[in-house]
Amino acid sequence: MKIGIVGLGLIGGSLGLDLRSLGHQVLGVSRSQQTCRRAIERGAVDDASVDIALMARAEVVFVCTPIEAIAPTILQLKTHLSPSAIITDVGSVKMLVVTAVKDLWHNFVPGHPMAGSAESGIEAAQNNLFVGRPYAIATTQTTPEDASEVIEEIARSLSAKIIKCSPSLHDRAVALISHLPVMTSASLIETCMQESDEAAIALAKQLASSGFRDTSRVGGGNPELGVMMAQYNRQELLRALDAYRQQIDRSIDYIKREDWAALKELLQQTQLSRPQFLKKTDCDPSSSGQKSLK
Amino acid sequence: MKIGIVGLGLIGGSLGLDLRSLGHQVLGVSRSQQTCRRAIERGAVDDASVDIALMARAEVVFVCTPIEAIAPTILQLKTHLSPSAIITDVGSVKMLVVTAVKDLWHNFVPGHPMAGSAESGIEAAQNNLFVGRPYAIATTQTTPEDASEVIEEIARSLSAKIIKCSPSLHDRAVALISHLPVMTSASLIETCMQESDEAAIALAKQLASSGFRDTSRVGGGNPELGVMMAQYNRQELLRALDAYRQQIDRSIDYIKREDWAALKELLQQTQLSRPQFLKKTDCDPSSSGQKSLK
Repeated sequence: MKIGIVGLGLIGGSLGLDLRSLGHQVLGVSRSQQTCRRAIERGAVDDASVDIALMARAEVVFVCTPIEAIAPTILQLKTHLSPSAIITDVGSVKMLVVTAVKDLWHNFVPGHPMAGSAESGIEAAQNNLFVGRPYAIATTQTTPEDASEVIEEIARSLSAKIIKCSPSLHDRAVALISHLPVMTSASLIETCMQESDEAAIALAKQLASSGFRDTSRVGGGNPELGVMMAQYNRQELLRALDAYRQQIDRSIDYIKREDWAALKELLQQTQLSRPQFLKKTDCDPSSSGQKSLK
Repeated sequence: MKIGIVGLGLIGGSLGLDLRSLGHQVLGVSRSQQTCRRAIERGAVDDASVDIALMARAEVVFVCTPIEAIAPTILQLKTHLSPSAIITDVGSVKMLVVTAVKDLWHNFVPGHPMAGSAESGIEAAQNNLFVGRPYAIATTQTTPEDASEVIEEIARSLSAKIIKCSPSLHDRAVALISHLPVMTSASLIETCMQESDEAAIALAKQLASSGFRDTSRVGGGNPELGVMMAQYNRQELLRALDAYRQQIDRSIDYIKREDWAALKELLQQTQLSRPQFLKKTDCDPSSSGQKSLK
């Protein structure tokens, strides 16, 4: 299949690496000439250009740009693509994308592969990024079923786990497990940086271990991505942050009142609940015995 | 050297495995007969007993019990140990331990290896748990220097990174990078569990990926340990939680006011700051090229 990728960052580049390994012909478009060159050098694309006209030959196009560029990109693609071409995106928010794209392209499949790393850009692209990862397909009533099936088949070939849902439910769910963690994690780092006791923070930097590393990871990620999540999923993120703040207040209250029984019950509850959110392929590195992918 | 370990959980058991590998004779004490048996079977100790009298032969004793049992354990040890024996602990809080032990044993070295995992108990014990990890030695003016040097030498032999500090500074620093993360992380899990939209939380469980896994890890850990941190480092943890709550409010404020420039600046700051808390040996698994231990 001839597959186009617009936006050759971590996700676009990683898609390209995998899709080429699977035997597809991959064409890439980036705003940056240097990114095009590196994408070819790294084997993420067969050909690349800063000119979106390169997409004319593509049967399927993955739009892997930042969220705010998705609709403008599709508007540009319109004049080049064959009407039968399928466009999909990888944006981490779906409601606003679906609304913006609705009247632009019929064969559009809203997608969201739940994969990432602390790094971004073409240099961070890697093979097998999507293996065992959830891949949300957030179709609406107007999404053509055959187009959706093509994207699902591609996602399945990346060994991703297809999860179908509505765009609104998608946005509420990712607010909780993806966008909220960015804010709670960033707030943790910022709390340390704002510490007025300089000796304490100097020591904290030395003592910080795996607990801090893991809890702070997503808060130390791509700032543009964090802002975009907040911008494009504002209402659901505010709802989640409000609920989160109540939980922080609840912990503070227990500790202030020295209600250790209540705190213990809370922590027992969180210990019991957490595994419901973990996949077999997504377990703690410490229990890597379960890390096989099948 | 004859080394005693009281408390054969994750830390005590892992210490035993390493110390035996290094050629020491390791004697273990646990309240549970079965733990003693498993510690011997797993090679974490040469001999083990539920009777603390076994410690009589030890030159150095690691007290690896829960924090509240440290002082009572040392009180019990008093009648069995030779006066030249050195006692150290591995408690994650130091001020209250130092105060409680002050008049019990002269040769006491307050310690805190910053290592852990989501698991606990003798079955979770592992070799090389302390490699490249910070090991705080939180001595006071009355800590005998030669005793401290012995413990530092042992910690160094585990390939841990010795960090000397005062008990009060230790407690303030770990409140920020160890105890606060437990609460922020547990609150994240609890926010999801309290979600009233059942379809959203069912989807969230399916979509949760590495971001949620990492951010929720320490909040899904040992509840007893979490409560003890709060109980024994209450004042510093409340101070940290209060500062954290202000950061959460700041994020909420930015998002409510749609001040995306301010949010971006905040996230740029946290992205820049986070690496200051990471060690070369403690980097993100995603950038595992740096994972060598030397």
